[in-house]
Amino acid sequence: MKKSIVLAALLLNGIAIFGQTKDELFFKEIYKSSLTNAKCYDWLDHLSNKIGARLSGSDNAQKAVLYTKAQLETLGLDKVYLQEVMVPKWVRGEKETAYILDNKTKITVPICALGGSIATAKNGLTAAVIEVQSIAELNTLGDKLKGKIVFFNRPMEQEFIETFKSYGGCVDQRYAGAKEAAKFGAVGTIVRSMNLRLDDFPHTGNQSYGDLPKSQYIPTAAISTNGAELLSKLLKKNPNLKFYFKQNCQQLEDVLSYNVVGEIKGSVHPENIMVVGGHLDSWDLADGSHDDGAGVVQSMEVINIFKNLGYKPKNTLRVVLFMNEENGGKGGKKYEELAQANHENHIFALESDSGGFSPRGFSFESDEANFNRIQGWKNLFEPYLIHSFTKGHGGSDIDPLTSKTIVKAGLKPDSQRYFDYHHAANDTFDAINKRELELGAATMASLIYLIDQNGILK
Amino acid sequence: MKKSIVLAALLLNGIAIFGQTKDELFFKEIYKSSLTNAKCYDWLDHLSNKIGARLSGSDNAQKAVLYTKAQLETLGLDKVYLQEVMVPKWVRGEKETAYILDNKTKITVPICALGGSIATAKNGLTAAVIEVQSIAELNTLGDKLKGKIVFFNRPMEQEFIETFKSYGGCVDQRYAGAKEAAKFGAVGTIVRSMNLRLDDFPHTGNQSYGDLPKSQYIPTAAISTNGAELLSKLLKKNPNLKFYFKQNCQQLEDVLSYNVVGEIKGSVHPENIMVVGGHLDSWDLADGSHDDGAGVVQSMEVINIFKNLGYKPKNTLRVVLFMNEENGGKGGKKYEELAQANHENHIFALESDSGGFSPRGFSFESDEANFNRIQGWKNLFEPYLIHSFTKGHGGSDIDPLTSKTIVKAGLKPDSQRYFDYHHAANDTFDAINKRELELGAATMASLIYLIDQNGILK
Repeated sequence: MKKSIVLAALLLNGIAIFGQTKDELFFKEIYKSSLTNAKCYDWLDHLSNKIGARLSGSDNAQKAVLYTKAQLETLGLDKVYLQEVMVPKWVRGEKETAYILDNKTKITVPICALGGSIATAKNGLTAAVIEVQSIAELNTLGDKLKGKIVFFNRPMEQEFIETFKSYGGCVDQRYAGAKEAAKFGAVGTIVRSMNLRLDDFPHTGNQSYGDLPKSQYIPTAAISTNGAELLSKLLKKNPNLKFYFKQNCQQLEDVLSYNVVGEIKGSVHPENIMVVGGHLDSWDLADGSHDDGAGVVQSMEVINIFKNLGYKPKNTLRVVLFMNEENGGKGGKKYEELAQANHENHIFALESDSGGFSPRGFSFESDEANFNRIQGWKNLFEPYLIHSFTKGHGGSDIDPLTSKTIVKAGLKPDSQRYFDYHHAANDTFDAINKRELELGAATMASLIYLIDQNGILK
Repeated sequence: MKKSIVLAALLLNGIAIFGQTKDELFFKEIYKSSLTNAKCYDWLDHLSNKIGARLSGSDNAQKAVLYTKAQLETLGLDKVYLQEVMVPKWVRGEKETAYILDNKTKITVPICALGGSIATAKNGLTAAVIEVQSIAELNTLGDKLKGKIVFFNRPMEQEFIETFKSYGGCVDQRYAGAKEAAKFGAVGTIVRSMNLRLDDFPHTGNQSYGDLPKSQYIPTAAISTNGAELLSKLLKKNPNLKFYFKQNCQQLEDVLSYNVVGEIKGSVHPENIMVVGGHLDSWDLADGSHDDGAGVVQSMEVINIFKNLGYKPKNTLRVVLFMNEENGGKGGKKYEELAQANHENHIFALESDSGGFSPRGFSFESDEANFNRIQGWKNLFEPYLIHSFTKGHGGSDIDPLTSKTIVKAGLKPDSQRYFDYHHAANDTFDAINKRELELGAATMASLIYLIDQNGILK
């Protein structure tokens, strides 16, 4: 069985090799269309500058739903529709304040509440601080944490080439730090921002109290990397200094929102569905141009490119703009729930959710046979400086998809600058380069074209 | 003969393959050193923010010479010295002004004099405008150009993946436009900025009157891309509109300046010289962080990395910070002149002069045998996302080097954003990402290490 799969892969590879001229020519058309005739940059301008931050449940998130639906309706799809989904609604309230109280000196530092955090008391919270590098270290401190603010200060590691690896090695402090510290009676947590550079932007992001009883929830916030360095330095001189912070964020009732879906019916295999998407919601501190306005408009651009080139996919192609990736993932789950209910067969899903930077390749969740075949297509991508085809995570919104045989992929842009902006107030439209955004869209369209032409191996 | 070269190449390739573990480990150390322990970002901060724009012959250029020499002296090199070189001194004078005179409406547009241009008359120059797309088109217009301002408006082509290709297809308008237009009696030229995006920054750059008699020189300036679009649009409505511009730049006498050279004597082949460098001078509109502050500090970082790792090169390694790349190339020529006079044997030269962006590979000026062998090293670079090894230009400053057998290389960073900043007022330190800069330095050090270990094929 395994042999026959390998043989099939080789044969299909063979076809791809003989068909190279046609594919090469079509790749050329795709990239040219995107670099000279794209709409994605203007769409992103609107999403970012006319609408702005789009946290789930906000008015802006709803505006983004209506805007992208209207834009998709101009692209001549077979249908454009909304999928209802209930999403959490968390609101930041007024801007947070924080300072270090070092003897009698107050030193203001930039913080922001983490998504899902509770508020402090109305007048804020003051406590002594214990700095830790990890949750493991927390567990060794036990009773010493009682009544304290726990300061998680493990930096993202600089030495990895892929910055997402550094993020993965760090984000537990943000996601689970408050829950773990609360178990020992800590009264709050402050987390060093997930940022590889030293600057003054606090980076928000989701956190979870897990199954902690509500009465044990403690407020949690991110501090800028410069703020974290300062706090750590001052703590070494004066371990008894105090930290004050005030935030009045709150979790409201879930509200109705939507995934936006546009569809081209497959001309040969309408029953086979390919998804391309990103997420419409963003954090609330900025307009989320990289996370994930870029992925939204690149996914829409794939449709626009195919339209401009008169390409009719053999398989059904759906652009899905997911809601609520940032703090709940409800849109992705809802999409899968409906796919199951409708007995749909997804063969491929591609997500762009790593920023609008120069594309470098893809990461694939795939069986060996399909992954090997896709590797055989690398030569087609090389003229466009796309070289990196690795196994790895596809994307949060396509995670829930469970069709029997499905290949999932995530666009991999250059990751060096991503965490300069991620979940922070500087993730804005001016940090986007038009050509990098368009090259990403073209790279996505090219992979979808090959999957559409060749299908996937079952 | 050819066969034996190929055989030698294969053999040496073989050695590289067997030696992979050692090389792999050393690559890891190089990248780690650069990402965790580099000085280049702080050096660039000083060059950009403490010194600033460094046009040849300026006080700042001299400050940059002294600063980089002093910094090199801290790195434990065998010698650090200056090479005297006479350089042109062109000064911009007061900020240029320009407007479109459309009937009685004056519309101000952003321009800047091109390097080497003469001034307008003291009160400026007003004339009707003829728009052309090329020097070829100019030649068809003949007498119609008399008394006119020629407006060169051919945009950089968007569809190329490598933006330097777009630049190469466009820059003749800037370099030779004034000289060619003057031959037909034009009174000035305005050139669309070499910029792939639409914005309000005029981009300067060198231009040449060639062997035109001085009496025929005409003033020439760049206009921002938005300005060019506007002028073109208004010209279509009103071909009789006038353009006004005023600039009081001037070419002064040549002055004494310096290349900065630091050297580690080779432990095995001191007679074989490897050069790594960038250019110290920048245009005058900004601090030149990308062009070419980045190349300067990356070249210095190569030395710092080797020092941190205790690596003693077998061949002599020279860091050369060239003066006057932008408007004369005198530093590169002087370096070669002295190399000839001293009967030096250069085996390798690497320049970084394409911006401090994420490194993608190198372009090589090399014979086939050495190029093929270098291609065999690609697998060592792949874990660092370095994939692009092409034949192409090494660098302007190393162009003059003429040793009998020499491999030249240019670092190839991602080129998408380069022309957003190139020669414009926004080429500043905030446009630099620390990790991208450091990855470039590590990539340079890695190639130099391999050349040093393996020598070049003669």
